[in-house]
Amino acid sequence: MAKHDPSLDHLFAALGDPTRRAILSRLATGPASVSDLAAPFDMALPSFMGHLKKLEAAGLIETSKTGRVRSCALQPAAFAPAIDWLEEQRALWSGRLDRLDALVMAMAAKTDD
Amino acid sequence: MAKHDPSLDHLFAALGDPTRRAILSRLATGPASVSDLAAPFDMALPSFMGHLKKLEAAGLIETSKTGRVRSCALQPAAFAPAIDWLEEQRALWSGRLDRLDALVMAMAAKTDD
Repeated sequence: MAKHDPSLDHLFAALGDPTRRAILSRLATGPASVSDLAAPFDMALPSFMGHLKKLEAAGLIETSKTGRVRSCALQPAAFAPAIDWLEEQRALWSGRLDRLDALVMAMAAKTDD
Repeated sequence: MAKHDPSLDHLFAALGDPTRRAILSRLATGPASVSDLAAPFDMALPSFMGHLKKLEAAGLIETSKTGRVRSCALQPAAFAPAIDWLEEQRALWSGRLDRLDALVMAMAAKTDD
């Protein structure tokens, strides 16, 4: 069994919510203030801040304060463990399908004999 | 804002657990019976079945029964929405970085004039 990577738990859990995914998509186009980020959502500010906290805990965003304005910026590198894990899975199952293909080819060749 | 895709909620939530990720990695190498799948885990069977149910609800595995044996098989196509969403994010932020690069180059060229 692969070693347990707790950062993957936080990462995938953070991505499993439509508000948090929409925040990430918005931040992918550039940093934004909390109030600009919150504007499109029909949600109480404490709930919205809760989503930002989860994204920050997963390392997906960083926040900073200048005067009274808190800004958020995407940390694209934090997606890497999720992308890597999915790539690993793809490698595992495509390797298996390649072996199945080879087996079918070998059986077909045998039938041709 | 992008349209809400509830299947992404289930998918990412299903991936946010180490037991469920280990089950998927095991099934990536081929189908297995529930008892074979459960063997490496120090977990009561009802809890383990709960994990299988979440994977099945997310479409990531399919189960079938032959006699008394229930088998599980991976459904690799079900990973696609998660992979697609992550690729979209990468396209968004790398597009932004490309535009920043172009801006820096344009500014540098202007300085050379």
